[in-house]
Amino acid sequence: MKCRRCGELAQVALPSHHTGFCAPCYETYFLRQVERGIHEHKQFSKDDKLVLAVSGGKDSLGLLLALTELGYTVTALHIDLAIPVSSENARSTVEAFCAKHGIDCHVLEMAGKGLPIPEVKKKVNRPICSVCGKVKRHWFNRFAYEEGFDVLATGHNLDDEAARLFANTLRWDQAYLSGQGPVNPAEGRFVKKVKPLCRLTEYETAVWCFLKGIDHVLAACPYSGGASFTGHKKLLADLEERSPGMKMQFYEHFLKSGKPAFEAAVKSQPPLNECSDCGFPSSQEMCGVCRIKRLLEA
Amino acid sequence: MKCRRCGELAQVALPSHHTGFCAPCYETYFLRQVERGIHEHKQFSKDDKLVLAVSGGKDSLGLLLALTELGYTVTALHIDLAIPVSSENARSTVEAFCAKHGIDCHVLEMAGKGLPIPEVKKKVNRPICSVCGKVKRHWFNRFAYEEGFDVLATGHNLDDEAARLFANTLRWDQAYLSGQGPVNPAEGRFVKKVKPLCRLTEYETAVWCFLKGIDHVLAACPYSGGASFTGHKKLLADLEERSPGMKMQFYEHFLKSGKPAFEAAVKSQPPLNECSDCGFPSSQEMCGVCRIKRLLEA
Repeated sequence: MKCRRCGELAQVALPSHHTGFCAPCYETYFLRQVERGIHEHKQFSKDDKLVLAVSGGKDSLGLLLALTELGYTVTALHIDLAIPVSSENARSTVEAFCAKHGIDCHVLEMAGKGLPIPEVKKKVNRPICSVCGKVKRHWFNRFAYEEGFDVLATGHNLDDEAARLFANTLRWDQAYLSGQGPVNPAEGRFVKKVKPLCRLTEYETAVWCFLKGIDHVLAACPYSGGASFTGHKKLLADLEERSPGMKMQFYEHFLKSGKPAFEAAVKSQPPLNECSDCGFPSSQEMCGVCRIKRLLEA
Repeated sequence: MKCRRCGELAQVALPSHHTGFCAPCYETYFLRQVERGIHEHKQFSKDDKLVLAVSGGKDSLGLLLALTELGYTVTALHIDLAIPVSSENARSTVEAFCAKHGIDCHVLEMAGKGLPIPEVKKKVNRPICSVCGKVKRHWFNRFAYEEGFDVLATGHNLDDEAARLFANTLRWDQAYLSGQGPVNPAEGRFVKKVKPLCRLTEYETAVWCFLKGIDHVLAACPYSGGASFTGHKKLLADLEERSPGMKMQFYEHFLKSGKPAFEAAVKSQPPLNECSDCGFPSSQEMCGVCRIKRLLEA
C-alpha cells in the first residue's frame, strides 16, 4: 500500500478510512483530524484559556502534544489520587512530559483535599471506579472554574465515545443520549467541556504516541478491573472489521440525527442546587463529593 | 433446574428470562407472551378481521397455530413466488398445515400477477431479496385491503426486530426509527400491520414449533445468501449471552423512549401519490411493483 498523501510506502494502515500513510504523513493526518474535531464542533479557538485533564495515559499525553503542535496554549491539569506506586508513576510521567515540552502543569492532590482514593475505597461501599470518576470530574471542573479557564478538554477518543453511546443506546436513556457529545456547553459553575480526540480511535492515538516517542503510563489502575466498556468496545471492533468506517458513522450520525431528537424530547430539567458545602452544582442539598469527604472525616 | 410454573423438571431453559419451563408449561408461557405482545401494543382484538402472511417457515406457521389456540379467527395468506421446487414445497407445506387445522387459506400466485420471481430476477438489476420483499409487501397489503381485512399480521420475531432496530440505529435514520415497531397503523390504502411475535425470539419460536410438532419449511430460499441481518443477529446474540435480557430491553426501551423522540423529530412527510396503475400508495407516479411488472411485459 502506498501513502495516500505522498505516494511513498505506507506504514500505517487505516481501514476505517480505506487508506494508509507513511509515518510523517500520518502525523499530518492525525493533527488534521484533531483540528477538524475542534473546528467542526466549535470546541475552542486560540483565544480561549484552555486546560486539559491529563492522566498520564496515551490519550491525554498524545492530545497534549497535538494541541501544542497545533499552536494552542494549553495548561495540563493532573489529579494525584494518592494510590501507592500507581499515582506516583502517573504524576512523575506527567510532570516529566510537561517539563520536557515547556507546558504549564498543575497537580491537584486528593490527599490534600480530604479525598485520598485508598481511603475513599475503604469507606465507600460502591464500585470505586464510579466514585473515583465522580471525584475527578468534580475537581477538574472546579479547578477550571475557579482558575478562570474557558474550556476543559479531556482525552476521550472515538472508541470511548462510541462505546458510551452504544451503552446509552441499549438503554435508550433520553437524558444521557441528549447530553452525550464532543461538547458540553458551560452552564453556571460547569465550565465548557470538550473532547478534541472525538474523530480518532484508540489505535490511531497509540500510533501517534509511538511515532512521537511519548513516554506514557502503560499500567492499568490497580483498583480497576480493566478499561471501561470493554465488552462494548470489542463488539464495536467486530462491527468495524465487518464494515470499516462504521464506528465513526455511528457516532457522527448520532450527533446529526439522534442527539437533536433527544434534546427536544427531554423535558426541561429542574435546575440544580448549589452544594451547601462547596457551592458547586448538585441534585441534592450537598454534592456527592462533599458527602464522600464528610464520610472520610467521620 | 425446575420448571418455574409447576416445579417439575425444566426442559426448556430461558436465560433471557432467568428461568426455565417443563414442556407443557413452556407452551403456556409461549401463548401468554404472544397474547401479551398483542395486548400491550393494541395490535388487534377478537372482533378484528385478521389475515396472517404465511411463508411456511417456523415463525409464520408457529404464530398461525398460536393465534388459533388463543381463539383468534385468522386467515392464512401465502404468496406463491413461482420459484421451482422451493415455492412448491412452501405452498404444499402451508396448504397441508391449514387443511389439518381447519384454517382458511388463500394463495396468491405471483406468476398469475405477472411477477414470477425467477423472471423478475432475470430482468431486474438489483439484489433479488429486496425486490422480492417489495413484491410480497405490496401483495400482502393489497390483498388485505381489497378483501376488507382490518389487520395484517406477520411472523417477525424479537430477533428480527432487534436486528432491524440495530441496523437503523447504526445509521440513526430518523424516518426508519420513527416507523419501526410492532404496530403500523392503517393509513389510506395501507392496512394496519402487526407483529404478534415481538416478545419472542427465534429460539423460542423454534422450541414452540418442535413441541407442537409443526411441519415447517426448513430449506432457505435458493436465491437468498442466508437470513437477513445475520451479522447483527450474531452480535446481538453475543450481547445477550453477556447480559441475558438485553435484546428485549433494547427493543422495549426503544419503543418507550426512542421511537417517540423520532416520531416528534420527523417532519410531516409529503403525502404519497396513488400509483397510476394499481392505485396503491407510491412515492412516484407509478409504484415500484407496477414498474417491475412493466419491465417484465416489455
